[in-house]
Amino acid sequence: MGSNFKYEVLKVCKQSGARIGRLTTPHGVIETPVFMPVGTLGTVKSLSPEEVAEVGSQILLSNTYHLYLRPGHETVRAAGGLHKFMRWNKPILTDSGGFQVFSLSSFRKVTDAGCEFASPLDGGSHHFISPEKSIEIQQALGSDIMMAFDECTSPDVTKKKAKDAMERTLFWLDRCDKVATGDDQILFPIVQGNVYADLREESARRTAPYAKCGIAIGGLSVGEPKETMYEMLDVLNPLLPSDMPRYLMGVGSMDCIVEGVCRGVDMFDCVLPTRIARNGTAMTLKGDINLRNAKYKEDFSPVEEGCDCYCCRNYTKAYVRHLITSDEIFGGRLLSIHNIRALHRLTAEIKQAIIEDRLLDYRKEFFEKYVF
Amino acid sequence: MGSNFKYEVLKVCKQSGARIGRLTTPHGVIETPVFMPVGTLGTVKSLSPEEVAEVGSQILLSNTYHLYLRPGHETVRAAGGLHKFMRWNKPILTDSGGFQVFSLSSFRKVTDAGCEFASPLDGGSHHFISPEKSIEIQQALGSDIMMAFDECTSPDVTKKKAKDAMERTLFWLDRCDKVATGDDQILFPIVQGNVYADLREESARRTAPYAKCGIAIGGLSVGEPKETMYEMLDVLNPLLPSDMPRYLMGVGSMDCIVEGVCRGVDMFDCVLPTRIARNGTAMTLKGDINLRNAKYKEDFSPVEEGCDCYCCRNYTKAYVRHLITSDEIFGGRLLSIHNIRALHRLTAEIKQAIIEDRLLDYRKEFFEKYVF
Repeated sequence: MGSNFKYEVLKVCKQSGARIGRLTTPHGVIETPVFMPVGTLGTVKSLSPEEVAEVGSQILLSNTYHLYLRPGHETVRAAGGLHKFMRWNKPILTDSGGFQVFSLSSFRKVTDAGCEFASPLDGGSHHFISPEKSIEIQQALGSDIMMAFDECTSPDVTKKKAKDAMERTLFWLDRCDKVATGDDQILFPIVQGNVYADLREESARRTAPYAKCGIAIGGLSVGEPKETMYEMLDVLNPLLPSDMPRYLMGVGSMDCIVEGVCRGVDMFDCVLPTRIARNGTAMTLKGDINLRNAKYKEDFSPVEEGCDCYCCRNYTKAYVRHLITSDEIFGGRLLSIHNIRALHRLTAEIKQAIIEDRLLDYRKEFFEKYVF
Repeated sequence: MGSNFKYEVLKVCKQSGARIGRLTTPHGVIETPVFMPVGTLGTVKSLSPEEVAEVGSQILLSNTYHLYLRPGHETVRAAGGLHKFMRWNKPILTDSGGFQVFSLSSFRKVTDAGCEFASPLDGGSHHFISPEKSIEIQQALGSDIMMAFDECTSPDVTKKKAKDAMERTLFWLDRCDKVATGDDQILFPIVQGNVYADLREESARRTAPYAKCGIAIGGLSVGEPKETMYEMLDVLNPLLPSDMPRYLMGVGSMDCIVEGVCRGVDMFDCVLPTRIARNGTAMTLKGDINLRNAKYKEDFSPVEEGCDCYCCRNYTKAYVRHLITSDEIFGGRLLSIHNIRALHRLTAEIKQAIIEDRLLDYRKEFFEKYVF
């Protein structure tokens, strides 16, 4: 499986151990560290594929659960796969559907066989996704990177439950691995173990053998304190294979990206930049600002001074504020462009610090400027 | 006033009397017949100015009433005018606010002095717009074409009320005309008279002297049968000045544009193409189609065969349908692009027929293909 993939480490930061790498896929090369914007239903909300690419996105994430329910993976297969359907020719990563089954379905029944759940779309039709089914759907979508079907637990469950879910995730991983064939798709296994260091250790040790060209860290950024997430990353950093990218799922705030890369993470994804954009929040290297604030009413400066995105090159805070307060779609669109670009500018700064062997210094400087 | 404007008739169709013309404004030239997309609040909903221009739009319309309430005309003035605020460098036409005061305000009191009305935005703050105030706002916005402040009546009022509103519109026109100074803005007066041929005649006769480089027909397309609108246009066609463009306000369906040009109309505007786009309706030269229809689920052909817009060049009906049924913003955006382009393609066909002195033949062919 996945012979058309490779990962090369190009540079290791002497100060932090963080890496710059290059992941080659059938749809092109991804330089890490990388932030991946999310196009849940085969569209990064409000943006064209050209806009997503123009801000510097190298890969996007799409959701198996959502595409399975709507328009259905067989429709995407008939369209020639997700790349062709949505007209995005760079790499695509699809999640497994596991997380959404747990977080979005009103009814769900998890057994070793898989998950039965009720659709939130049509009044509750029942569906069943097994590890094999998740891979079958991801194969129909034709993503470059497929994720293993896992069981994610909330940080407030007992250790017993966390361990059971970890075991089930490993059991399912073996089944995913058996059916994830083909050279043009790669399977990323997912480390679970909740907030328990020993479970994380065990999960990392037993998951690593399944990793061919990438491994993911799941079950974090799901409600636990950030410090706890950082502790888990510190546990995992020396244990995870160093010859492949590590993907921290669901993380997209600037502070967590900086802390994550310092702890050996190479890939990130999150709906955060586009979701808060539609709400009027701009991400900047000095912290978030909310354009609804009345003080921007006649502020004719760009959203972020020095930003090179389409929004900042062309429009003022006053105009974006007007659009946002008037519920005009173009406002969310402009801030989505800006926010994704801001995260790509952040990873560019991080890369430069890695090249200069000074990522820990950069982190210090970053947090001196960054206002929470 | 308006010395930086001129209108030249380039060609008159021998078969229909319809014209091709060229209206020169401080922000560029408009070839007529022309459809003007509407950017109510200084944004054509969901689209960038580049997209609006790329589909062939030569001028757009923005709404005085809406911009007065939000963000306020003084904010737009402080931004350097509407062109700069929204980054649209081609001509802009602003309506006078009259129509919206009548159609959108929960409370309104009309006297010869002007209109008092309650804002629908903030729980009912009271505002007053006089003819002079409407022009002052439009001057702050800096539109190329300003519209006279008029009183529009619904087609079900008595003839007495229709006549009173026509008289008031003429009284207000004289006041608008006195304050509409400056060479870089032109005032279009508006013919009223409801659905009464004699009132329309009288209004046309008394309004025409105020028209310098364009005249508008208001109070149609407001609920009366289309046949009645066509009758009124037939009444007006020989009476309106022929050396300037005639603008039929609020009309944007393909059939009405074809019938309008055949009756001497040169300019049209409507929210229709963008409003129905967000609902999933595509305008085509063969009639509207609704992409929500299940039959398009796996239809991988473009929205309109032969259309050269960004949507039709790149995406399938199946993908657009998926976006629309999933409430994804990009779906409405793609159809807005398509629908505006479809209207510009229609006017291009109409122009060609005028050049060939066969517009009445074209109309026949158009209606043979067009399905209501």
